[in-house]
Amino acid sequence: MEVEALVFDVFGTCVDWRGSIIREGRALNAERGWNIDWEGLVDAWRGAYQPNMHKVRKGELPWTKLDDLHMMALKDLLPRYLGGTPKSAIKAADYARINTMWHRLSGWPDTVKGLKRLKARFIIGSMSNGNVALLTNMAKFAGMPWDLIMSAELFEHYKPDPETYLGAAKLLCLKPEEVMMVAAHNNDLKAARKLGLKTAFVARPTEYGPHQKYDFEAKDNWEVVARDFGGIADRMGC
Amino acid sequence: MEVEALVFDVFGTCVDWRGSIIREGRALNAERGWNIDWEGLVDAWRGAYQPNMHKVRKGELPWTKLDDLHMMALKDLLPRYLGGTPKSAIKAADYARINTMWHRLSGWPDTVKGLKRLKARFIIGSMSNGNVALLTNMAKFAGMPWDLIMSAELFEHYKPDPETYLGAAKLLCLKPEEVMMVAAHNNDLKAARKLGLKTAFVARPTEYGPHQKYDFEAKDNWEVVARDFGGIADRMGC
Repeated sequence: MEVEALVFDVFGTCVDWRGSIIREGRALNAERGWNIDWEGLVDAWRGAYQPNMHKVRKGELPWTKLDDLHMMALKDLLPRYLGGTPKSAIKAADYARINTMWHRLSGWPDTVKGLKRLKARFIIGSMSNGNVALLTNMAKFAGMPWDLIMSAELFEHYKPDPETYLGAAKLLCLKPEEVMMVAAHNNDLKAARKLGLKTAFVARPTEYGPHQKYDFEAKDNWEVVARDFGGIADRMGC
Repeated sequence: MEVEALVFDVFGTCVDWRGSIIREGRALNAERGWNIDWEGLVDAWRGAYQPNMHKVRKGELPWTKLDDLHMMALKDLLPRYLGGTPKSAIKAADYARINTMWHRLSGWPDTVKGLKRLKARFIIGSMSNGNVALLTNMAKFAGMPWDLIMSAELFEHYKPDPETYLGAAKLLCLKPEEVMMVAAHNNDLKAARKLGLKTAFVARPTEYGPHQKYDFEAKDNWEVVARDFGGIADRMGC
């Protein structure tokens, strides 16, 4: 393989968004005396992710960065998950703090160590629907040592639109086949392969907690299939 | 100061482009038995930098990334600095190797250490006219630990066009005054300050070797004026 760069899906593939938000949310409940149902909220919140990006794709919304899609959904959903907490207790600054929980997600146990091994030999970059500031803050929070942040925001298109994968290769001055997309989601890899990128799958079977329905295993003959990022590093000779 | 992010000019401010290219060029002369005048070439090559970017600014050229402007100038200039080396000795692959010397520039002695100190407390990013691949490769080569690569290429405008400084603040979701531009060039800081960014100056008096004509000292009351990146880290409380 002539791979020069590995580009990573982030939510679910690199970080445990569900566990991280429930953890920070429960700490916030304790701090403020709130009773927000964080499990219910985070599942509904993530449930709004694809439909809202699809509104951008269809042109029902102009280009809108993920922080703003998150805030739209939060304002809609939070009132349903207050668990008796008075709505008036949640101020504008609280909404802002809750919305940036997506900037403070923790990596899976193998993430940082695996990325460091891969970085010694390859260019490693994020290739996420998160916006640049979100990904930058998250990398600092979680210790993910990206060589560069690539984001849907740079292309004003959300994955799996082709502009994202091809845009990443173009920014890196590489051919698509010199770039490997790493994801825990078969559909992300399917879109990348169709455009000529190499593909690596790692299962994250607890990403959706008890609600996980798919992506327990590789659904195609991806170039690399591994248990975790250490396994990808092994396969890539790092 | 409410600074959240420091963004850095790269050529001259972070890396010694002139010394690095002369060094790699002389090694290449020895390897190939060439007699190219690398001092003459690099000075003429850098001399073509502003005029070529200005052609893009004026619309005489469509958006053209720096690698391609470098190659245009190299093809024009190299024949004048061959020092008797037969023109036929320089193949297309040699031009490509020479052009990517700009990807392999070394930091000044204080650069990496200073950046590491600043990174512990602030977001640090490149904000350079170099294209993304050039800056990414250079960061790996020189060990510069950017949180993110920002480049004129992302905005399709070259500094000092306002789109670059304001585009960087926008990507970071920060107000201009929360971003500090770091440069060894007074005119870069002047453009950044006009748009509301904070400014930090560090002198690099040997950037142009014996041909340096200006930027020996701060020409305005920049928020920070330091001898080197360690001095900036001191002033920023890192």
